Amino acid sequence: MSSPQLYFEDFEPGRFFELGPKTVGTAEIIEFAREFDPQPMHLSEEAGKASILGGLSASGWHTSSMFMRMMIDSYLLASASEGAPGIDSMEWKKPVLAGDTLSGRSTVETARPMRSRPHIGIVAFRHELQNQRGETVLLSRNSIMFRLRAVKEDIA
Amino acid sequence: MSSPQLYFEDFEPGRFFELGPKTVGTAEIIEFAREFDPQPMHLSEEAGKASILGGLSASGWHTSSMFMRMMIDSYLLASASEGAPGIDSMEWKKPVLAGDTLSGRSTVETARPMRSRPHIGIVAFRHELQNQRGETVLLSRNSIMFRLRAVKEDIA
Repeated sequence: MSSPQLYFEDFEPGRFFELGPKTVGTAEIIEFAREFDPQPMHLSEEAGKASILGGLSASGWHTSSMFMRMMIDSYLLASASEGAPGIDSMEWKKPVLAGDTLSGRSTVETARPMRSRPHIGIVAFRHELQNQRGETVLLSRNSIMFRLRAVKEDIA
Repeated sequence: MSSPQLYFEDFEPGRFFELGPKTVGTAEIIEFAREFDPQPMHLSEEAGKASILGGLSASGWHTSSMFMRMMIDSYLLASASEGAPGIDSMEWKKPVLAGDTLSGRSTVETARPMRSRPHIGIVAFRHELQNQRGETVLLSRNSIMFRLRAVKEDIA
């Protein structure tokens, strides 16, 4: 593995990281739904149109997983991430329909070193994704742990 | 589609629904991670052992998606579900390792009809999953919308 480029110190409040764009295909919506969320509106265009979602739409868990991949590609894989303990909130604000293109950003809200593990810091993010019409489809808040650069250099 | 068996009225506070069991395989952990969360500890046993997770471990988003499938199989697909607006909280308490067997329950905490849409009710759940050692690996709270039986019969 290459060395991380982003350490805790790089996640300053107000800094943001662009997510996407990612166009969501029909086949991947159906493939995910068959495995994890086989409800009719996620499995066929007909059932989607008959539902309040208005068309074949991605499972909220699929949208969340695609959002994770966008974070990975934007900043997480290049970071000294130590993982996340969970999600503080996740809102699926609008349906994600086949053919939609999603993009957004993760914005740092707060950042503080852990008391119990001084070489790790906790960064609280606000995440958002919009579709190609500018409508917000996902809003989420969560905290991710990162190693401190200073300590890394000390022990290197 | 067959008629739903579970309507809003069936989700009484205190009632719970069993989830799983589901044994998590090595191949599916890696397959999910390749697509959505390609971090080393989700891609190989070696990298997992070198991480604080202690072994090849499922992405938290994979665990969440498997949890969704357990809800589908336990009660959602047999229900008059109208979907969920999001997740109030999701905690990944312990790593989910290859070979682990997960089971748990969804417990109804509160249930109330919507004011704006009187034929729909909102049910707040507390969800939990444990591994085969009895350790809690996932805790979540969210609300799911269900159609009322009474109204369904009126308009049928």
